[in-house]
Amino acid sequence: MATKTFDLSDLYSEASIDTEIRVPKHAKYDFATAQPDPSSIPLKGLTDALASMLEKQGTDLAYYPDARGIPELRELIAGKLERDDGFKVSPDNIAVVNGSAEANFLVIKALINPGDTVIMEHYVYSGTLAQFRKVGADVVGTPMDDDSIIPEKLEALIERLTAEGRKPKVLYTIPEFQNPTGSTLPTERRKAILDICHRHHMALIEDECYTDLRYEGETQESFRSLDDSGIVTYVGSFSKILAPGLRLGYFVADDELLRRALSFRHTGTNHLTSLAVYEYLNREMYEHIDHINGLNRPKRDAALSSLGENFGGTGTTWTSPKGSLYLWVTFPEHVNATELMPIAFEAGVGFNSGASFAPNGDGDHCARICFGYETPEKVRDGIALLAEVMDREGSFKVSPGA
Amino acid sequence: MATKTFDLSDLYSEASIDTEIRVPKHAKYDFATAQPDPSSIPLKGLTDALASMLEKQGTDLAYYPDARGIPELRELIAGKLERDDGFKVSPDNIAVVNGSAEANFLVIKALINPGDTVIMEHYVYSGTLAQFRKVGADVVGTPMDDDSIIPEKLEALIERLTAEGRKPKVLYTIPEFQNPTGSTLPTERRKAILDICHRHHMALIEDECYTDLRYEGETQESFRSLDDSGIVTYVGSFSKILAPGLRLGYFVADDELLRRALSFRHTGTNHLTSLAVYEYLNREMYEHIDHINGLNRPKRDAALSSLGENFGGTGTTWTSPKGSLYLWVTFPEHVNATELMPIAFEAGVGFNSGASFAPNGDGDHCARICFGYETPEKVRDGIALLAEVMDREGSFKVSPGA
Repeated sequence: MATKTFDLSDLYSEASIDTEIRVPKHAKYDFATAQPDPSSIPLKGLTDALASMLEKQGTDLAYYPDARGIPELRELIAGKLERDDGFKVSPDNIAVVNGSAEANFLVIKALINPGDTVIMEHYVYSGTLAQFRKVGADVVGTPMDDDSIIPEKLEALIERLTAEGRKPKVLYTIPEFQNPTGSTLPTERRKAILDICHRHHMALIEDECYTDLRYEGETQESFRSLDDSGIVTYVGSFSKILAPGLRLGYFVADDELLRRALSFRHTGTNHLTSLAVYEYLNREMYEHIDHINGLNRPKRDAALSSLGENFGGTGTTWTSPKGSLYLWVTFPEHVNATELMPIAFEAGVGFNSGASFAPNGDGDHCARICFGYETPEKVRDGIALLAEVMDREGSFKVSPGA
Repeated sequence: MATKTFDLSDLYSEASIDTEIRVPKHAKYDFATAQPDPSSIPLKGLTDALASMLEKQGTDLAYYPDARGIPELRELIAGKLERDDGFKVSPDNIAVVNGSAEANFLVIKALINPGDTVIMEHYVYSGTLAQFRKVGADVVGTPMDDDSIIPEKLEALIERLTAEGRKPKVLYTIPEFQNPTGSTLPTERRKAILDICHRHHMALIEDECYTDLRYEGETQESFRSLDDSGIVTYVGSFSKILAPGLRLGYFVADDELLRRALSFRHTGTNHLTSLAVYEYLNREMYEHIDHINGLNRPKRDAALSSLGENFGGTGTTWTSPKGSLYLWVTFPEHVNATELMPIAFEAGVGFNSGASFAPNGDGDHCARICFGYETPEKVRDGIALLAEVMDREGSFKVSPGA
């Protein structure tokens, strides 16, 4: 019997990349990923819901699932969108897929040719940024302030890119609790941005994975509720209100875009999990959302107070989101948070530096701190430890709190 | 507010296809898809297993899943492969993904450039055939007899294609209960085929989704057990021993091929379902496999006897698989089973004609009959009804049983 004698090296496809398999590692203080509170996952609620649905229609698991997911869950989503996001849509225009990562992937594949220009926020969710890059998109970040995208600067950017022969095709945005900054686009800016996208004939992808995670202030009107012309594709997820391990997300698109996006699917939607999630949310969606927001608020508060106590006077600034699971920290320009990451991880603090969120390649002096997973106490202690590590590494001219 | 005024038509990607969304339809007698017996799905067993695992480690659902799936399930698969398929492999070389459809997709993406030539069986599983075509492969079917691929004809085909400048890169085969024919490759042929693939430097994908569904005779040695040189990539599934709605399958590949295949993933493996499937199989995998084979055997027998009673004397022939969920029917040459499909469906009998299983474009006079979903009584009655419909449609020179 031969042993490792067959040389596959000239048989790999040109598109394949030999990338390291990312094995998730978790620091003692885990601020690296926008994970929910593990104690918040309704384990018993999901099991009970599943048992009840399996009793009613479990034999349907014998079928190969519909490419858009089970009708019950699509109807539940349609109802939720009407109540919470202010727009009416047929369940036929909703596709439930294996996580919002798959939703974004499918919409991206339906719209982007290699070389097409895409605009995203100046700092933007690393996962979607990587997906755009993987299909060969020319990704450009648009300037932001505390209220996210600045419409006038967006239009100036579009005009400059168009003049350069790089007319952008798509704007991807996370309007509510933008990941990673936590900022929210005011409704007036959304209207201005829609107007800009119409005039420049750009499709708009609205990723609303975090919209339910508000614990103060008012949810703004969704792009989709402001415009049903077909320009907006809406993406949502159950990862943030339930758990990422359920791998269920969805997108809402016009007929033809939906069909084209689904033409890139190569597997169906998990039916077992769909049954559990449908029935659980049917029973207690809003109680659960209230519950998790009640859990997250003290964590955000702990993060903010610990940042004040431990980074005050160092020239570091941070955002104060009114919801979500993360905030954005800007260290003094000379700090290289990318280099600090493995050092901090060793010391017990996991976070992601700004570099992976930066379409324009900057961001080494920034970091996203996800406070959703740990307890308020651990959020406080972990941020203090990060300041200690950074001070020891010579990141600050003035020691924290000095 | 604008209404459907935004024209997306010039924004779709070139690769996107406006295909109809396939909404699964089920005939009264459903022989169209290789679905398991709905009564065989261990609904209570899965719920109990899930509840027990969630109690132990449910909070891990808060994490984003490992791209290769949970370690427990990979270890269970490694143990099963050693016991049942005769080869030892590290769980690190196993990736659990969302169905064997995703497994095949990832391996295909890692190996195939547009235009690359691929050899499959003369009739082969329509799903994988469609996947190869989607990536632009030049797909060619190789001649089969009752024992599946004929090695000498395979080599002659490779030589002809190579002479034409279409040197094949990959052989995809379902060695055990080939879908759609139900045939099994004898071990001696497997050895000859491995020798041919080595000499012509072709990678071999062995799709073993059906290997557990044997109710008589002996399982042959898997390609992977005969050759650990790296030439063989092994694909498996839980859809056939549990249920398609669980969407869990896996592949076993050498380090670099595994990494390259996983580079095409855009979502993780369903963690909730992985926990349920792991614990259920850990508790009673082999009892369950025995149980389903006990259920399927009388269905196969009912199909064979009903074919004899209702298609005897019509010039129709069929295979007699020793396991699996399907058999292959060859009608007289002049019959167009593709045209008959919608007529039979209307009358209450669902099946798939051979056309969708044919890399070389033939197969209109053939059909796959999946007998796994219905009861033996319904298998018998449905086949009788199909003969009645075909006789009414003038498919036979001599009426069945006449």
